[in-house]
Amino acid sequence: MNNDMEPKPIQWKNGEVIILDQRRLPSEEVYISTKRYQEVVMAIKDMAIRGAPAIGIAAAFGIAIGAKTIVEDMGIKDKDHFRMELEMIFREFASSRPTAVNLFWAIDRMKDIVQKNTHMDVEELSELLVEEAMKIYEEDMLSCKRIGHFGKELIGDGFRILTHCNAGGLATAGYGTALGVIRAAFEEGKKIFVFVDETRPFLQGSRLTAWELKRASIPFCVITDNMAGYFMKKGEIDCIIVGADRITSYGDVANKIGTYTIAVLAKAHRIPFYVAAPISTVDFSKKNPEEIPIEERDPSEVTHFMGIQITPYGSRARNPAFDVTPRWLISAIITDKGIAKRPYISSLKRLREKNL
Amino acid sequence: MNNDMEPKPIQWKNGEVIILDQRRLPSEEVYISTKRYQEVVMAIKDMAIRGAPAIGIAAAFGIAIGAKTIVEDMGIKDKDHFRMELEMIFREFASSRPTAVNLFWAIDRMKDIVQKNTHMDVEELSELLVEEAMKIYEEDMLSCKRIGHFGKELIGDGFRILTHCNAGGLATAGYGTALGVIRAAFEEGKKIFVFVDETRPFLQGSRLTAWELKRASIPFCVITDNMAGYFMKKGEIDCIIVGADRITSYGDVANKIGTYTIAVLAKAHRIPFYVAAPISTVDFSKKNPEEIPIEERDPSEVTHFMGIQITPYGSRARNPAFDVTPRWLISAIITDKGIAKRPYISSLKRLREKNL
Repeated sequence: MNNDMEPKPIQWKNGEVIILDQRRLPSEEVYISTKRYQEVVMAIKDMAIRGAPAIGIAAAFGIAIGAKTIVEDMGIKDKDHFRMELEMIFREFASSRPTAVNLFWAIDRMKDIVQKNTHMDVEELSELLVEEAMKIYEEDMLSCKRIGHFGKELIGDGFRILTHCNAGGLATAGYGTALGVIRAAFEEGKKIFVFVDETRPFLQGSRLTAWELKRASIPFCVITDNMAGYFMKKGEIDCIIVGADRITSYGDVANKIGTYTIAVLAKAHRIPFYVAAPISTVDFSKKNPEEIPIEERDPSEVTHFMGIQITPYGSRARNPAFDVTPRWLISAIITDKGIAKRPYISSLKRLREKNL
Repeated sequence: MNNDMEPKPIQWKNGEVIILDQRRLPSEEVYISTKRYQEVVMAIKDMAIRGAPAIGIAAAFGIAIGAKTIVEDMGIKDKDHFRMELEMIFREFASSRPTAVNLFWAIDRMKDIVQKNTHMDVEELSELLVEEAMKIYEEDMLSCKRIGHFGKELIGDGFRILTHCNAGGLATAGYGTALGVIRAAFEEGKKIFVFVDETRPFLQGSRLTAWELKRASIPFCVITDNMAGYFMKKGEIDCIIVGADRITSYGDVANKIGTYTIAVLAKAHRIPFYVAAPISTVDFSKKNPEEIPIEERDPSEVTHFMGIQITPYGSRARNPAFDVTPRWLISAIITDKGIAKRPYISSLKRLREKNL
């Protein structure tokens, strides 16, 4: 289902996890191959792989190689011992990054396999875990295509679309959520143009989204985050599409820092603001957005750039990695099961229960 | 009037203009000494010196050394010839940067001297031009202190203030407009804390404002531009103060790109949004903000960072350097003649006519 225009941020090959190191894009396309789950944990923490669905997939693959290591390298055959070791691996992945719910969702799916198959011996179980991880990967690919299919209807011919961060192939199995919608509209022959927020401090926009759009030959230009308001005011933006790291049952959306600001601007300029995410990004256990943990990352990401200090020595900085956009600023949530409209509390629930 | 806590972005010493190269701050404090007006033009264009009042002062000093060069180096004594040569210098400065009105205001003051003193010989006239430039410099110093004096009343004890770009000593003769208010409140003993927007692409916030605040021992932290909304929503910001590059007679404010976005956010969160600028920043000839030319700078400022390319090779970028904040988003304009409140059309006019 993947093609050359779409990136391969994470793959499973001959018992190894292969991760495209996104910290080095766009200047270098370097892949990390590993059989050690600890390296996968580090890749998530250090953002070699990032994006809510992609870190879910990475955790699943990481757990799968972790399980194999317990059986094959540590030689553990006892079921209880195996479970205990695996439990520690679950915990390591769970503490890698706090905000994106897909991570916990993927871990829970892997846990479920273990819990539901107590009859199996450890070899069988670890094989099943690999299969489950592959399933998560393939479902994500399908899920992004569906998001694209539903979302492209919202994109008019000639639309100039603003996106923030990278909700692209790199943030998923390969097609993208927000960029999935953009890809689908473009593949359908719609003339579109993308404004790419550079997305400080990690520059997911200017490094990653620009890289993907260029590969896909979709016309775009990069702007700094503080220019979005200027272009909205000038009437140069027709709609906004972003991804999501976690959505509450009421439809409030945690996403990359700066998303909230764009949503406020979109409202002020009456520009549609869309969120694209698989239904698995909805955390139905959270009603109140205050319950979503917001990761605050190392201030050096703000004070430094590619190892060079920008600020005067000793300057303090803050670095919240996400913000929450309240539901009333969101025009629609594009999921893999259809488009949710307000009130999201009922539309999201309906979509979750819908069989495709 | 200057002290060690305040920077010296531009000085006149023994017939030379000495410019602190702001492109190299905060890592290096390098001064450019020059007797060539062309170097001053380049310093303005390349943003070795920037900030509306400072580029006005730089143009005045540049014209003064230009006039001296015509007389002393080119040996021109004929009044008409002198005027013709000087006219070309005026034009070069006028085309250096388009948005900040202080540049044109300073050039006009220098032109006035020439026009009002047709009786003088060229030596006398060029001396008078040096004196006028010094006057512009000293008036700016006084003007910033007055802005600080009036503005500090708006700052409560314990206030957490957000500022954008650098409207500090570096953007003026040495005390600052927005930072002048912050300095004055701090000098008065108020406990304040400053959130510094890094201000992409040129990073005037993280490089220059942080450098000034550190020297002045005023507590601060740097944030990326897209974080401002997050901190406003969390209730961590009590007011916003920015500078201005040009203000229309109705009170619409052109300032560094990103200012408009902050003003929209401030309105949405009911946080006071103040503009600090000398009354000379008001362009009473402009009613309609659409008449203010907005400089679009080289896209490489966005695609590159300290000479390193961020975006994929061949990526397009946009780089408008300023935006316009409509008057209804501005809580007050703090000038050197007092605080203007809405409707600005009358309050600004009243302040212009006020004698101190």
